[in-house]
Amino acid sequence: MRSIDLVVAAPHVLTMEGEGVGYRADSALAVDRGRIVALGPTEEILGAYAPERLIRRPRTLLMPGFVDAHCHMELSVLRGLAQDTGHWMMYGLNPFKGSVSPRDRLWGFRLGVLEALAAGTTTLGNYDDLMHQEAALVEEMGLRGNLTQLVREMPERVYAPGELYRFDEAYGRRDLENLLDLFDRWDGRGDGRIRILFGPMGPDFLGEALLGEVREQALRRGTRVHLHVAQGDRETEQMLLRYGKRTIPWLQERGYLDEHLIAVHLTDATEEETRLVARSGASMVLCSNSIGIIDGVVPPARTFLEAGGVVGLGSDQAPGNNNHNMFNEMKLTALFHKIRHQDPEAMPAWKVLRMATVEGARAVGLGDRVGSLEEGKRGDFILVDLQAPTMMPLFVRPMRNLVPNLVYAARGNEVCLVAVDGRVLYEDGAFLTLDAEEVREEVLRLADPIGEASEETFRSVRGTNFRFMEEGKL
Amino acid sequence: MRSIDLVVAAPHVLTMEGEGVGYRADSALAVDRGRIVALGPTEEILGAYAPERLIRRPRTLLMPGFVDAHCHMELSVLRGLAQDTGHWMMYGLNPFKGSVSPRDRLWGFRLGVLEALAAGTTTLGNYDDLMHQEAALVEEMGLRGNLTQLVREMPERVYAPGELYRFDEAYGRRDLENLLDLFDRWDGRGDGRIRILFGPMGPDFLGEALLGEVREQALRRGTRVHLHVAQGDRETEQMLLRYGKRTIPWLQERGYLDEHLIAVHLTDATEEETRLVARSGASMVLCSNSIGIIDGVVPPARTFLEAGGVVGLGSDQAPGNNNHNMFNEMKLTALFHKIRHQDPEAMPAWKVLRMATVEGARAVGLGDRVGSLEEGKRGDFILVDLQAPTMMPLFVRPMRNLVPNLVYAARGNEVCLVAVDGRVLYEDGAFLTLDAEEVREEVLRLADPIGEASEETFRSVRGTNFRFMEEGKL
Repeated sequence: MRSIDLVVAAPHVLTMEGEGVGYRADSALAVDRGRIVALGPTEEILGAYAPERLIRRPRTLLMPGFVDAHCHMELSVLRGLAQDTGHWMMYGLNPFKGSVSPRDRLWGFRLGVLEALAAGTTTLGNYDDLMHQEAALVEEMGLRGNLTQLVREMPERVYAPGELYRFDEAYGRRDLENLLDLFDRWDGRGDGRIRILFGPMGPDFLGEALLGEVREQALRRGTRVHLHVAQGDRETEQMLLRYGKRTIPWLQERGYLDEHLIAVHLTDATEEETRLVARSGASMVLCSNSIGIIDGVVPPARTFLEAGGVVGLGSDQAPGNNNHNMFNEMKLTALFHKIRHQDPEAMPAWKVLRMATVEGARAVGLGDRVGSLEEGKRGDFILVDLQAPTMMPLFVRPMRNLVPNLVYAARGNEVCLVAVDGRVLYEDGAFLTLDAEEVREEVLRLADPIGEASEETFRSVRGTNFRFMEEGKL
Repeated sequence: MRSIDLVVAAPHVLTMEGEGVGYRADSALAVDRGRIVALGPTEEILGAYAPERLIRRPRTLLMPGFVDAHCHMELSVLRGLAQDTGHWMMYGLNPFKGSVSPRDRLWGFRLGVLEALAAGTTTLGNYDDLMHQEAALVEEMGLRGNLTQLVREMPERVYAPGELYRFDEAYGRRDLENLLDLFDRWDGRGDGRIRILFGPMGPDFLGEALLGEVREQALRRGTRVHLHVAQGDRETEQMLLRYGKRTIPWLQERGYLDEHLIAVHLTDATEEETRLVARSGASMVLCSNSIGIIDGVVPPARTFLEAGGVVGLGSDQAPGNNNHNMFNEMKLTALFHKIRHQDPEAMPAWKVLRMATVEGARAVGLGDRVGSLEEGKRGDFILVDLQAPTMMPLFVRPMRNLVPNLVYAARGNEVCLVAVDGRVLYEDGAFLTLDAEEVREEVLRLADPIGEASEETFRSVRGTNFRFMEEGKL
């Protein structure tokens, strides 16, 4: 009997291997030093390994943790302040964003993690410009971080629709230096749990020269470029104003579309442009809730898949989406596509479950490490309580309803245990690597000062939510 | 000081009075013998009343309980078995429905209640043909039941698309007798908590004569007709085959459209037909999740509202929707309309919150009793935990984010207390009037026999989910 760190056994397992969901009954996972060393029938695994800890729960489902391929969790601090409005970025988000200090954002980041981790997210694809501090938090909390430090040449302020953004070269240069420094310090840390990606914020937020240089530096280091692409009519307008071209053809001409690119959103991509990106080898990240609420649009993920591309899912940011919960993203992705295509067979449950796990991992360059339960991959897994009302009843024949219930009924609170690299981070409501009570207290405290500091801009914009407040609708 | 049963006080209150959400800070509700006797500033209420029980919790929101205007909770027993498929009713639901006994359905009903009650639903608009037993359960559990016994002339079996349903007059007659008996026994019971509506199942499920008679009998008793209307192309096809007319014009010619009618779905209604129903005084029930997943359609609720109609929300049934949770219905209603109209300002949070409470109550004929917190109405209320991560942070200025967070971030598990007629039915995870453990055990037990009995029909239909099982996708 080989001594190892952990065996986790469950009556139902979704490994996500192969082309489907890799269902197995009564199976167990053996994990040692963070790595999956075996997966097999429970009795066989228990006969071969002597684990330091055995997790064996009746009426649970064992499956890989979720990959949130793209998010800005620090903005959780502005949850519920930017929705139901047109011109989201300038009229919804930015009146508040300017009043948020780096300290506030780090508490917002922790708040986002509270929500995401409890709902089974094990890989955070966070995208921000505070990545030195956030990488340290991720390392400390034991999560997997596929972290992107952003680079832009445009200092933030509220622009009116149709106003061309002004670039500041020194600003962009500083961002790039900071990114290179971050990469050197953090990439590969925490036994490889932390990876650093390069994040030019969008083709409209920095100039052509810097955009090219970021890519070149990324390739030199063997990492990927994580870029907002065609993220809405606001961006398209900027690109047409500046270059007289739409984003995707413009990027293609500059050799930007290839397997090194993670293209986020594609909100405003035509069918033809979508196929162009998919065929280039770039991956797509779909943020269904965020783009649905911000733009009223369902990005063309089905077209991207049909053209042979790989798609991951992202929760984007709380002001807008208002959630960091991959159950929410799976469900909305399935439902929104049924509506977009007026077809109840569009985007079935198993397909979106793959996007949130194994395909999501491939989309962000972690396909060899996580996303499925397979020997050699890292021990990132969750247990789901099958006695939660939303997961009941449990049918095994003539069809299993596990996957439909996970996607369409579960809300996230069915997750009862979350582990990364075989280390349990969350169990039955308790966070083992972060102080949830402290996060709550700090987050409750910082709202009033942010609100006060935002008041003048909020009033001057006179947006939809300003009107709703006046009318007693909020 | 007047002695009363209950005072509930909270730092934030949404009364849902007036045209908005009726926000009040630090307020309390005084309830006596089931009725709201006063609502005012907490200190004022506590100075005027001596309650037997005082519920006063920091960091909570007090608001009316939700009205689920239309559901079939007994079908929770088939959760997760009918989705991702075309021809939902015949190919998704019916292969299983025939194997479900009345006893199974009553356990399914209890399972649905577990989910709904914990998520703040206080009024159940259940629609079924087991209403004698369900009314007894509702009375026992202390909920408010706006219950509809269905009447149809068509015995259930799987029909192929295009096959005209065959009616059985004796079957319909028996249903009507049963309904009249139910009304006599149950309407008004439980201090008025139970109301009985008349439910002809749909204009395609019974003939013209019986449809007319059900309405006549309903009007004679001062209750409403609760009817599936234009619920999809399946129904439209039946109406064209049988009468050569689409549903809504056909109903109008027969004087069926007026304020006595609750019209559910309108999935297949044209814009003009929708306005016709709205202007007739009939109300609409919108089941966003259900119709989205079953048909890939967003029913025309915005048009209905614009034409002056009143709209409530319903969770419909678990196989399909897969949820009985009004938070889910509110969120999807808002998001689906943004997508349908490609407009982020379509269906803002406050509007769908009204549909789930005060407008929903009006839509089903309970506008004088529930849906808002006002003196004279019944004491149906919930408390929401504002320390749940999804409800944080809490901003009060320059805009309140309470309503957006309720609609877009909350998932239902933020509800910490639910009361009907001033009686607490659910508190901090505990169900005080039903045995949740017994429901879980029974529901887990009945899946295998239902699955076994359905196997042959499921296989013979060879639908999408059959193929998914073969391919390892479930």
